[in-house]
Amino acid sequence: MSQYRILIEANDEKGLVHKVSSIFYGYDLNILSNSEYVDNENNKFFMRSVVDGIVDGVELEKSINDILPSKSTVRVIYPKKKNIIIMATKELHALGDILIRHEAGELEANILAVVSNYDALESLVSKFDIPYITISHEGLERPAHESKIIEYIDSFEDVDYIVLAKYMRILTPRFVETYKDKIINIHHSFLPAFIGANPYKQAYDRGVKIIGATAHFVNNNLDEGPIIAQEVIHVDHAYSWKDMQRSGKDVEKVVLSRALKLALEDRIFVFANKTVIF
Amino acid sequence: MSQYRILIEANDEKGLVHKVSSIFYGYDLNILSNSEYVDNENNKFFMRSVVDGIVDGVELEKSINDILPSKSTVRVIYPKKKNIIIMATKELHALGDILIRHEAGELEANILAVVSNYDALESLVSKFDIPYITISHEGLERPAHESKIIEYIDSFEDVDYIVLAKYMRILTPRFVETYKDKIINIHHSFLPAFIGANPYKQAYDRGVKIIGATAHFVNNNLDEGPIIAQEVIHVDHAYSWKDMQRSGKDVEKVVLSRALKLALEDRIFVFANKTVIF
Amino acid sequence: MSQYRILIEANDEKGLVHKVSSIFYGYDLNILSNSEYVDNENNKFFMRSVVDGIVDGVELEKSINDILPSKSTVRVIYPKKKNIIIMATKELHALGDILIRHEAGELEANILAVVSNYDALESLVSKFDIPYITISHEGLERPAHESKIIEYIDSFEDVDYIVLAKYMRILTPRFVETYKDKIINIHHSFLPAFIGANPYKQAYDRGVKIIGATAHFVNNNLDEGPIIAQEVIHVDHAYSWKDMQRSGKDVEKVVLSRALKLALEDRIFVFANKTVIF
Amino acid sequence: MSQYRILIEANDEKGLVHKVSSIFYGYDLNILSNSEYVDNENNKFFMRSVVDGIVDGVELEKSINDILPSKSTVRVIYPKKKNIIIMATKELHALGDILIRHEAGELEANILAVVSNYDALESLVSKFDIPYITISHEGLERPAHESKIIEYIDSFEDVDYIVLAKYMRILTPRFVETYKDKIINIHHSFLPAFIGANPYKQAYDRGVKIIGATAHFVNNNLDEGPIIAQEVIHVDHAYSWKDMQRSGKDVEKVVLSRALKLALEDRIFVFANKTVIF
Repeated sequence: MSQYRILIEANDEKGLVHKVSSIFYGYDLNILSNSEYVDNENNKFFMRSVVDGIVDGVELEKSINDILPSKSTVRVIYPKKKNIIIMATKELHALGDILIRHEAGELEANILAVVSNYDALESLVSKFDIPYITISHEGLERPAHESKIIEYIDSFEDVDYIVLAKYMRILTPRFVETYKDKIINIHHSFLPAFIGANPYKQAYDRGVKIIGATAHFVNNNLDEGPIIAQEVIHVDHAYSWKDMQRSGKDVEKVVLSRALKLALEDRIFVFANKTVIF
Repeated sequence: MSQYRILIEANDEKGLVHKVSSIFYGYDLNILSNSEYVDNENNKFFMRSVVDGIVDGVELEKSINDILPSKSTVRVIYPKKKNIIIMATKELHALGDILIRHEAGELEANILAVVSNYDALESLVSKFDIPYITISHEGLERPAHESKIIEYIDSFEDVDYIVLAKYMRILTPRFVETYKDKIINIHHSFLPAFIGANPYKQAYDRGVKIIGATAHFVNNNLDEGPIIAQEVIHVDHAYSWKDMQRSGKDVEKVVLSRALKLALEDRIFVFANKTVIF
Repeated sequence: MSQYRILIEANDEKGLVHKVSSIFYGYDLNILSNSEYVDNENNKFFMRSVVDGIVDGVELEKSINDILPSKSTVRVIYPKKKNIIIMATKELHALGDILIRHEAGELEANILAVVSNYDALESLVSKFDIPYITISHEGLERPAHESKIIEYIDSFEDVDYIVLAKYMRILTPRFVETYKDKIINIHHSFLPAFIGANPYKQAYDRGVKIIGATAHFVNNNLDEGPIIAQEVIHVDHAYSWKDMQRSGKDVEKVVLSRALKLALEDRIFVFANKTVIF
Repeated sequence: MSQYRILIEANDEKGLVHKVSSIFYGYDLNILSNSEYVDNENNKFFMRSVVDGIVDGVELEKSINDILPSKSTVRVIYPKKKNIIIMATKELHALGDILIRHEAGELEANILAVVSNYDALESLVSKFDIPYITISHEGLERPAHESKIIEYIDSFEDVDYIVLAKYMRILTPRFVETYKDKIINIHHSFLPAFIGANPYKQAYDRGVKIIGATAHFVNNNLDEGPIIAQEVIHVDHAYSWKDMQRSGKDVEKVVLSRALKLALEDRIFVFANKTVIF
């Protein structure tokens, strides 16, 4: 008996649920959970099912593909640990939270390595027997620096996600394109407010009563990629921007870990610069 | 073209989604939304679909019933305004919130009447041209008082829900049985904490840092019916119990209105003293 | 015995609490609550005390003023109902919430009138025996329209706050200046995100996972005045922008009522385009 | 220049703020922050001030004591790292969160040791160069087991707080009495709901829509000590009790760390089985 996650994205038409569930029934599969959504604006159908039974995943995928409209995508995924690389700079709260969850066995992930432009986090990461590599940006143009990072990442056979756990440098379009829909970033504001540098300072200057954090896939426009998760906390006049920064860390780490978990469990569709999450 | 809500509760077995969606497909119905849940502990399958198309509701219900296991229930509901009666005592915040939502056209409901054991709320209710009837409990045993209320309620042909908007009297088993799964109450605590009288005083005495409210269907055990919705707010040492009571009103009205909305939209299944909500 | 609220804003210097509390002690006043805050960036001291005892308010104010640094402001306020005018357009949820709270005696306010550019809300407001005046903007330039509104507002002797309960027109600098720090607006987004028209549509297009509302004093820059209160709720991909709008109403009314309550209880200082709230 | 935290608890009487602030003024101290609260029910006055200036702490404490009513307590605290011992059993999320915060320099604390009745967490703790001691309870009566723990704890000169980071054994009155108001526990429910064993199972059985966590000081009645912090998250029918347990971990760790931070910053008064927190 195997368990599979089936993710379908198709142009909507009548009978899709019927056709897909017929396939499941034909293979004598048990549906453990099933979620559907139709984006009426774009006439798009999304479906995520978890099934178990005795079936060959490749064959199942082919069978489903056969009954879907053209230009559909179906993924039949056998749940296993995904390979992730974490990129960070100097702050350890978001990285630390992932390391502890990893240690606790909460994440369906192997952490292949942590890449940083500083060595500040090496002592923490090395405690967990995870490779830590410092690739300094000093004296390098951005493309040259990134080439070294890409070279390192590509030294691994299979990387599912790159997690930016407070990696404080802007990525070039080339880097983003190389790992399209694979880079998860945590931005320390409730986007689209306070794009760019030092959002806590911006929030303080504006006198807001809430601050927040946003996890999103990275695209070519700074802080404008598809949003995965967001959360806020209340603040008041007594918070300096450094207080906001301190308190904000708790939201950042929670939101990033939540987004990572959703990705590792294959719960996210990316479409039209948005996410559909089951 | 008509829209229907289909609610199915059945003993779980393989192929249910397939069979039901086949019926939809056979009648050329379009699935607007679809939610399923399997309670593995009790081997129960729950499904709520919204479909549109040209079909006779009675025939559709029969067709679905034919393919379900025995002891299943299926309801094919044509969305229309439900008839509700509100019971209240003296406080007007929860009642007022429902009246305003009703006035705004937010509720799929006709308010047939407001029943109270006092006349305190009559001036508010009468503004909205809704019948208000005072049935005083003074000098009456509980059963005798309730008999008068039941008589009044039963003077209406069709009552879908009885909403207790801070009705501050305990109902007898007979009353509860008469309107089984039709009575929605708001209790002013996060149940199961602080059952019974004056939960804010209990909360204050315990020194809690959150207070809350719980909307639930009423059963024969005080404050122990199936929970529909719950919400909390933060408090601190500076709150007297009267402050908690004042602040709690905002939660109470929000939670009761949320629960009522779920009921009116046929989103709630009651099973094993719990709710499944789609 | 009288109760007073004392609000002090001063350039910070050592001994302010000592000096002010000496005055209280000298008049044999009992301090019921006391809050202080120092804005270190601007070297500003804020204090709000509630005291009771037998004292003449004018004399107390003078005595405090005497010991404060120059350019300080002190207000000794005898708590009484404030006079407010509500401006609205066509939506009734935020207005309705204020009317119900007013009816429940929750607000320290007299509602002098509701002013609207449409007659859509007249039937609701007139139920509560509150004057409703329609001042249509049709065929009028903005200044001419506002002149009529100002004329109406100024027909009342004393107006403490003007509450924009979803008044959907932009105010001119002249109007804002006329009622400086007296106009409270509810904006249907978590500012500074989604300034301007149809923030729910903007939020939907951006694919956010939270939506919110912001109550703020109005200044000359659209949606950029000092923020009083903010709140958010979670949404997901299944929300159309109309769903967001519907759900957002609950946040809007809660946030506006919260801000209004803070204003009526004299808990807000406005300084440097921010608020200090005790 | 030194910074002091001054915590005062006294029977309330007129002029206390005046008298205390006179002392501050007399020593030429700058008040950085100041919070007061009067518990009217018990006629108790609480005050917490942070001041800086040049003064001897012992002398300051004596001076304040001299002007307070009898039976008052005043603590003048020079902020420095507190010594804490963590007790845990097998789960690592709450412990891990504290370790990471400690590593990040977020906590004003030295972690002297982690004590457990199992060796399950040793590999994690030893990464951080913190002593880990396993004191197995097997084959020991509760008092005998605790004696060994007390002996170990008392081998340290100075222990400010004992943090129960999911220590899953009930403590005897003797243990609790030994470290009165020094033991901080995290209970995995929103107390007073679901006291005792497996609160998530209890919550699941009751069908609640929120689950939570409570940090509290430990007293002799199980889960009935003074509450420091509480938080909840929303759940729905699809959560098994194991899902609740998994999701609840995130709340548990956040609430425990928040409570610990409040304790380390000397922000908590314990009085009448409640906390006053500034």
